[in-house]
Amino acid sequence: MQPSLNPSVADDVPALADIDDPALTARLRHLIDHKTKPLGALGRLETLALRIGCVLGSEAPALDEPQMLVCAADHGLAARGVSAYPSDVTWQMVENFLAGGAAVSVLARQHGLALTVVDCGVAREIAPRASAPGQPRLLTHRVAPGTADASIGPAMSPAQCAAAIANGRAVVRALPGNALLLGEMGIANTSAASLLLARLCRVPLSECTGAGTGLDDAGIARKRAVLQQALAANAAATTPLAALAALGGLEIATLVGAVLEAAHQRRVIVVDGFITSAAVLVASRLAPPVLQRCVFAHRSGERGHALMLERLGAEPLLDLGLRLGEGSGAALAWPLLVSACAVLREMASFESASVAGPLA
Amino acid sequence: MQPSLNPSVADDVPALADIDDPALTARLRHLIDHKTKPLGALGRLETLALRIGCVLGSEAPALDEPQMLVCAADHGLAARGVSAYPSDVTWQMVENFLAGGAAVSVLARQHGLALTVVDCGVAREIAPRASAPGQPRLLTHRVAPGTADASIGPAMSPAQCAAAIANGRAVVRALPGNALLLGEMGIANTSAASLLLARLCRVPLSECTGAGTGLDDAGIARKRAVLQQALAANAAATTPLAALAALGGLEIATLVGAVLEAAHQRRVIVVDGFITSAAVLVASRLAPPVLQRCVFAHRSGERGHALMLERLGAEPLLDLGLRLGEGSGAALAWPLLVSACAVLREMASFESASVAGPLA
Repeated sequence: MQPSLNPSVADDVPALADIDDPALTARLRHLIDHKTKPLGALGRLETLALRIGCVLGSEAPALDEPQMLVCAADHGLAARGVSAYPSDVTWQMVENFLAGGAAVSVLARQHGLALTVVDCGVAREIAPRASAPGQPRLLTHRVAPGTADASIGPAMSPAQCAAAIANGRAVVRALPGNALLLGEMGIANTSAASLLLARLCRVPLSECTGAGTGLDDAGIARKRAVLQQALAANAAATTPLAALAALGGLEIATLVGAVLEAAHQRRVIVVDGFITSAAVLVASRLAPPVLQRCVFAHRSGERGHALMLERLGAEPLLDLGLRLGEGSGAALAWPLLVSACAVLREMASFESASVAGPLA
Repeated sequence: MQPSLNPSVADDVPALADIDDPALTARLRHLIDHKTKPLGALGRLETLALRIGCVLGSEAPALDEPQMLVCAADHGLAARGVSAYPSDVTWQMVENFLAGGAAVSVLARQHGLALTVVDCGVAREIAPRASAPGQPRLLTHRVAPGTADASIGPAMSPAQCAAAIANGRAVVRALPGNALLLGEMGIANTSAASLLLARLCRVPLSECTGAGTGLDDAGIARKRAVLQQALAANAAATTPLAALAALGGLEIATLVGAVLEAAHQRRVIVVDGFITSAAVLVASRLAPPVLQRCVFAHRSGERGHALMLERLGAEPLLDLGLRLGEGSGAALAWPLLVSACAVLREMASFESASVAGPLA
């Protein structure tokens, strides 16, 4: 069957305005250049301030009610031994997120990020529950109890993929705030991200496939062979949406929807590691101005991520050898975004502070 | 005159215990390795947690009342045109720190860092003033109204240098908390840092001399020629203390004292950029275990800093092209230290969260 663009999916891709505003950019640049510091002395923090100012359309941007969105789902590929951990860890970690003991829970608490976990298709259904205000919250948007085994056919049907994208859009529509941090959980999802990188950027699998949660060399070789089968079994899935359905995952498709909606609403999108970057890769192929709204938090230690960032033209903020996912890298980088806004809003200018400029 | 080790200075170098504790390190490593994440998946944050745990001697370290200490002074070398800015900017920026409009003021406020500014020898005396609790505070420990011109002789006498070191120790003794963040201000102080790197690490001046606050290529060439004169005029100043007195600055010497005292008290020392690293370089030559207590916040865009970090065996947390000083990079990195402690204290273990380990 020739994969085709499901009309309901195409309908669900919002038109995104080009937010590049030379007049605002010039005003922001002027403000930054007149702060009490040598020209350019705040380095990448200045670029970050410019970016956030442009996304929020403000010379005095303030980040408001930041939302950490962790999408979770299982992968048929896990049965092929592509991960060091069993699929059960997906639901167990979702419980850990909600109980407050996972890295992303700890970091979200530290930084006042509201944490929403979405069951997008975890094999073992997560029991719905009430949550107190300020506590992690579970949303249930299950499309299927995990994807099918992509090594023998498409992971999702076009309709399932479209449903997950629509879920992601709906979730973000219901969240407050002007900043969305992306996180994920799903045993075997570095495999899905590797496949999307290989297919959409025509990168050899040998360069896309890494240790994930901790495979040894033999494990990585096994994983690569399985991924090769998946590419062959889904050779016709070459458009971004067809590739997402055939090779992606339910959490990745939900994230694609979340990214599209957040971009549509001009929220600042904070991208975590390899898997959330794969969602941004797909979203940016569907609607390129997505990238104008993105801040890339870090360069992961997972093989493939550096290459993916390069292909996205992204310069991440941190490079700490993280390879945990969950949104942990996005949370760690978050204070830098807050700092960039604070510098723009609160630093004095040479004139206001009566500080002399450079010698003629 | 042959520079000699002033006895009062030698007396002021505290004996530092080796805090390397293999048993505690092993317990910390065990704790980190059993958190709910793949082995090593939090990358450099894990190393940071280990380091802080060792400095504070705790498996559940908590950072308490962090202090941002900004030492300010003027430099005789400034009259030789080694900086893009006039010396008056030193006192003007001190006023800006205290008024809350400088980068370090903004970032300290964001992160709840108590900000203390020390006039260690600003050419124009800063008027003492009362400060409200929670506001930036001025301390006056003036040894001289700036250093002498190091291009024709020693910048400080041994007694002046000793007095500044003693001041730094006294300042830290009076500060609460278990973490000290280092900052500085002083027009021409990248020159002093370059000279200390050149002398103490035997690095050619061509590799140590950068743009500072924004010199052009001709300006850098001029600066380098002046620094060459300073090295020649102080050829005999080869010990760490003699080099500090002859080539350093009053703010750098005060910082050396602050670092020695903080190390003595086993506080976590957060090192900012090129100038504070120069203070740590001197302090670590006087008492090598100083480095066990240091966290290097960032790799500055200022030429020479990368090299200095290498010589110190330091791997900084951030690499954002910052070259502002003031303590701004230390403040930006601060939340990573808080995160490292939170991960250690608050993350669940596989056992406590009932999460399955890796497949056999």
